[in-house]
Amino acid sequence: MLNLASIESARAALPPQVVHTPLIASEELSALTGATVSLKLENLQVTGSYKARAAFTILNNLAPEQKARGAALTSSGNFASAFAYMGRLLRIPVAVVMMDQTSPLKVEKSRRYGAEIVFCGSRFEDRWATLDRLEAERGITGVNTFESEDVVAGHGTLGLEILDNLPEVDTVLIPVSSGGLIAGVTMAIKERRPSARVFGVQPEGSNAVTESLKRGEPVRIPQVTTICDALIAQTPGSVPFRIIQRYVDGMILVTDDEVKRAVRWLAVDTKIVAEAGGAVCVAALLTGKAKPQGCTVALVSGGNIDPTTLADYIRDG
Amino acid sequence: MLNLASIESARAALPPQVVHTPLIASEELSALTGATVSLKLENLQVTGSYKARAAFTILNNLAPEQKARGAALTSSGNFASAFAYMGRLLRIPVAVVMMDQTSPLKVEKSRRYGAEIVFCGSRFEDRWATLDRLEAERGITGVNTFESEDVVAGHGTLGLEILDNLPEVDTVLIPVSSGGLIAGVTMAIKERRPSARVFGVQPEGSNAVTESLKRGEPVRIPQVTTICDALIAQTPGSVPFRIIQRYVDGMILVTDDEVKRAVRWLAVDTKIVAEAGGAVCVAALLTGKAKPQGCTVALVSGGNIDPTTLADYIRDG
Repeated sequence: MLNLASIESARAALPPQVVHTPLIASEELSALTGATVSLKLENLQVTGSYKARAAFTILNNLAPEQKARGAALTSSGNFASAFAYMGRLLRIPVAVVMMDQTSPLKVEKSRRYGAEIVFCGSRFEDRWATLDRLEAERGITGVNTFESEDVVAGHGTLGLEILDNLPEVDTVLIPVSSGGLIAGVTMAIKERRPSARVFGVQPEGSNAVTESLKRGEPVRIPQVTTICDALIAQTPGSVPFRIIQRYVDGMILVTDDEVKRAVRWLAVDTKIVAEAGGAVCVAALLTGKAKPQGCTVALVSGGNIDPTTLADYIRDG
Repeated sequence: MLNLASIESARAALPPQVVHTPLIASEELSALTGATVSLKLENLQVTGSYKARAAFTILNNLAPEQKARGAALTSSGNFASAFAYMGRLLRIPVAVVMMDQTSPLKVEKSRRYGAEIVFCGSRFEDRWATLDRLEAERGITGVNTFESEDVVAGHGTLGLEILDNLPEVDTVLIPVSSGGLIAGVTMAIKERRPSARVFGVQPEGSNAVTESLKRGEPVRIPQVTTICDALIAQTPGSVPFRIIQRYVDGMILVTDDEVKRAVRWLAVDTKIVAEAGGAVCVAALLTGKAKPQGCTVALVSGGNIDPTTLADYIRDG
């Protein structure tokens, strides 16, 4: 059963390669909102996103025989490279299932760390079938990252780290996709500091958790359309969703244009590079959609953005 | 007389607005060089560069009557905005002397913090004459940033901060313009840890300190041509030069193209925004021109880069 102790165990196990990422004060965002705003920079995490935490937790918690046979998950982005990196670190063979149309850049990034890339065709659903096939044929442990408790526990280490630096935190803003990240972070923070408030931020075009909270149950949205390629989920994970229902104080939606401006603002005014999905909380603050109170942390969750896209946002933002 | 105690006093006086900036490990630079390389991120310093340290030290060390009448310096860039910011913080009237052709963006940045901007015409030499006039006419204290011991002491606080985080540091790389920064940092580091080695990095087109060290005395180079607009100096300051002669282990030169590639690499691979002058040490590492040993720190000294220029470097680098 997932609880604060699971997150604390995950935290205790993290290797030195997982960075205790900086928390930097933002005078501009503080002046704009009236709160005291800091940014938690998981774009400076190893492999460029917070996924390094959960990738390690998944692999480290495998049984010895599972470690010997290897593990696989499906991702075209941040989870893939984090999983590849941690497989190499722990000397566990890892495979990443990717769709045929995955950008060669992202394929290469995972391959560079030593992961086997298994292409699964061009349909989203084929990813899960391919994971099942790898399990059946080769005894590889397939990880469903939407539902894994280890994933939520790994992500939750980020919440403990925020509390280490800011035990007095009042407001926390977290990007949301299928919900695993905010579930872990919120559980850590609310169990330790019940008075803190945690808000999720989603792109308008990928709002499965927001819609599910309105309906009181996980729903599948008909389509996903956003530039935030790290925040693409048609439905929440059911494990994270129950935690989100219990703990999260509200959801905020931002548009793709607002996100582009946030990426530009972060580069020009704050001197850091965020990917679109990593900048949604800053977008919520810059637009005034988020109304933080007191000591506030906004998560910048990742920085893996295509150079040409980054240049475009900076020039046109 | 400037010594380690001056730097320690400057450090003790720094206000909380001066950020203890993050030091982040770079797996890529470590793999490339065989050393253990970390980057000290003064681009995340308040006002976007390390100048915040010396700007505060200058103003804080003024006598009460000087504080009342105000202070001025000449700069078109990072020192100007840092000085403006610290003047506002300390409630000391500050003026910045700028040439007529200074970019409106940079003028606006200093003005935003409340500095008076005094334009001095279009010739470099007119800057000093205008500072003198302000002193004579209005009793404002004019600060010669090339020669001020307070400047060197303020910059030196960065060296102490590096030692706080990495007392075992073996190699330090520092960008060099007229020499004040490396003088302060080197004095702090060598006095505390004599075995450490400190190297300066200059653009090929702005190599006054390098040439002066060869000649054994400060020389004036005929012209300066570099994209590193924070590293423009035709001659070293004589106060810093004596310190550099005594302590610095060597100089490294990098080309503008190498610097552009370093800016791109920092954005894409490390997720941080550096200005050209802030990226010279990383350029020295990426090219193999620097040969660091052991525990190594490379300073990223600032991030104030024009958005269009940044976009160009990222796209074309």
